[in-house]
Amino acid sequence: MSDTKYDVLAIGNAIVDIIAKCDGAFLAEQDIAKGGMTLIDMARAEQLYSDMGPAVETSGGSAGNTAAGIASFGGKVAYIGKVADDHLGKVFTHDIKAIGVDYDTLPLESGETTARSMILVTPDGERSMNTYLGACGKLSSKDIDADKVAQSKITYFEGYLWDPADAKDAIREAARVAHENDRLVAMTLSDAFCVDRYRDEFLELMRSDTVDICFANDGELKSLYQTSDLQTAIACIRDDCNLSAITMGAEGSMIVTREKTGQIDAQPIDELVDTTGAGDLYAAGFLFGMTNGKELGECAILGGIAASEVIQHIGPRPQTSLKELAQQSGL
Amino acid sequence: MSDTKYDVLAIGNAIVDIIAKCDGAFLAEQDIAKGGMTLIDMARAEQLYSDMGPAVETSGGSAGNTAAGIASFGGKVAYIGKVADDHLGKVFTHDIKAIGVDYDTLPLESGETTARSMILVTPDGERSMNTYLGACGKLSSKDIDADKVAQSKITYFEGYLWDPADAKDAIREAARVAHENDRLVAMTLSDAFCVDRYRDEFLELMRSDTVDICFANDGELKSLYQTSDLQTAIACIRDDCNLSAITMGAEGSMIVTREKTGQIDAQPIDELVDTTGAGDLYAAGFLFGMTNGKELGECAILGGIAASEVIQHIGPRPQTSLKELAQQSGL
Repeated sequence: MSDTKYDVLAIGNAIVDIIAKCDGAFLAEQDIAKGGMTLIDMARAEQLYSDMGPAVETSGGSAGNTAAGIASFGGKVAYIGKVADDHLGKVFTHDIKAIGVDYDTLPLESGETTARSMILVTPDGERSMNTYLGACGKLSSKDIDADKVAQSKITYFEGYLWDPADAKDAIREAARVAHENDRLVAMTLSDAFCVDRYRDEFLELMRSDTVDICFANDGELKSLYQTSDLQTAIACIRDDCNLSAITMGAEGSMIVTREKTGQIDAQPIDELVDTTGAGDLYAAGFLFGMTNGKELGECAILGGIAASEVIQHIGPRPQTSLKELAQQSGL
Repeated sequence: MSDTKYDVLAIGNAIVDIIAKCDGAFLAEQDIAKGGMTLIDMARAEQLYSDMGPAVETSGGSAGNTAAGIASFGGKVAYIGKVADDHLGKVFTHDIKAIGVDYDTLPLESGETTARSMILVTPDGERSMNTYLGACGKLSSKDIDADKVAQSKITYFEGYLWDPADAKDAIREAARVAHENDRLVAMTLSDAFCVDRYRDEFLELMRSDTVDICFANDGELKSLYQTSDLQTAIACIRDDCNLSAITMGAEGSMIVTREKTGQIDAQPIDELVDTTGAGDLYAAGFLFGMTNGKELGECAILGGIAASEVIQHIGPRPQTSLKELAQQSGL
C-alpha cells in the first residue's frame, strides 16, 4: 500500500442550496414530502422558486458538505462532482476550494445548468429538499480520477448518486480501484425515499463488500430493511456491513460493527435552527476521525460535534472552524 | 393630503451580498478598511473572490434590507433599485418580492452585471464591505415612480446613492415630489467613508430641509461634523435636522429632536455573529413604528429589536418574523 495523499475522496451531486423558511401549511399546499428529497424538473423548480419566501444561496450537495466538513477539521480531502459552466457552478467551485478541498472535476460546457436544491425549513428545524439535478446528470466514469481514488484512505459517496444515469457505474469503478489499492469505501444511504428507490442495489453494495462503511439515519436504516423496528434493522445491517454509523437526531448515534453496538450521545445545542447538512457533517467528523487514528467512539463524538455546529444556523456547511471545536472538546 | 398606499418607499443600491468569515490578518493582507464600505472594480472583485473563504450569497443593499425589515414587521413598503437581467438580478428580485416588498424597477438589459458586495466578517462580528456597483450605476430619475413617492408616508434613501452617477438627481426629484405631497423624507448617512466623500452635500440636504429624518451611527455622525466628540456632533445635528436617530452598537441609540435627546438601550443578545444590516434593520423598525402611530421611544425599541435579530446570524435580512418579535415585546 503506497502513501496516501488524501484522508477522504468524496463523490456526490454538486448542488447549490437555495434555503428558505416556510410553515407546515406551505409544504402541504405545495405537496412536498416533509424531511425528504424530491427530484423536480426545471418547470417545477421555477414555479416553486416563485412561490417560496426569500432565500439564502449557499453551496451544498451531501458529499460536498461532508468534504467541506473534513476540510474544516483540518483533514486532507478531495471532491468529485459535476457543475455547469455558469454562475452557480462558479459559486460551488469557489466555495469548496476556498474551504480547502481539492476539486477539479471538469464543468459541463453546455446543455444543463448547475444543480440547485430548494430547501424549505419549517419552524421545527426540519428541512424538505426539492432538487433539480441539471449538470449532475452528466457525471460519469470519465470524471473519476483513479489516482485520487488510489491515493485516498477512504472513498466516500452518496446514495443520491443512483439518481443520475451514469454515476453508479462511476462509483462501482471507483470502489474497484479503491479496493485494489487496499483502501476503504464508504457510502451514505442519503434519504429514506432514495433507499426506497434503490433498496436492492444498496443492499447488494454492502453484501458484495463493495461498501465497507455505511452511514444512515434511523429512518433510512428502517427503510432499507422495511421494518419499523430499529433494533431489527440494526441486527440486519450488522450482518450486511462491516461498520455502520446510524444517526438518531437528538438521541445521538449508534456504531454497529460485526461484534457489537455502541451508542454515543448527541452534543448539546442551544437552538435547533436548520437540520440541513446534519448527517453530512456527522459523516465528516466520523471520517476525519477514522482517517486520523481515532477510536470509533471518538469518531462518533467528532461526528456529533460537526453535526451540532451545522444545525444551529441556516445552511449545510460549517460556519465555525471544526478543528477549533474539536480542540475545545479535547479531541 | 391623499391616502397613502405605502408606509415607506425605500430607494437604494440593489446589491447581492457574498458573505465570508475571515480573520483580521486577511483584511490587512488585502488592504481592506475594517468596518467600512470600499468601492471596487470588476478585476478587484474577481481577485478578492478568488482569495476569500467559502461564502453565502444573500440579497442585501442597505435600503433593500430596510425595506425587507419593514415588510417583516408587517408594514406596507415599496423599493426602487437597479439590478441587471442576470442570475443575481433574479435572486435579488425574488427575495425582495417574496418578503412582501412592492418592487418593479426595470432591470438593466445589458452593459453591467447586478451589483455584488463581498462582505468579510471578522471574529468580532464586524463586517467590511467591498462593493462592485455594476447596474446600480444606471439608476436615474427615469426609475423614480412619482406616484409611489406621493403615496408613501416616508421616502427613505441611502447616502450610498451619491456614489453612482445619476442617482442623486433621482433622489432630489423624489424628495421634491414627497414634500409637494406633504410626505416626509428620510436618509441614512450609510458609512463614515461615504460621509467623507459627500459631507457638504449631505449637510446641504439637511439644512435645506430636503431631508427631514436622518439615520446614522456614531462614527458616521462624528465624520459628518469632523469631530471626535459625540456630544458636539449631536448638538450640531440638532441644529441641522428635525429628527435624527443615532445608533451606538451595544450602547443602544439616541433620538435627537430640535427640543431634546433621548437614549434607548440596545436589546440583549446571546451572541454577536455578524453586524451586517444592523443599521439598516434599526431604520426598518424605527420607520415602521413612525408610520404606524408609535411614539419615538417605541420606534427606537422597534429598531433595536430588528437590529438585535439581524446581528445574531450571518446575513443582512431578518430570518425571523419581526412582527412576532415585536408582539413578544408587547409592541
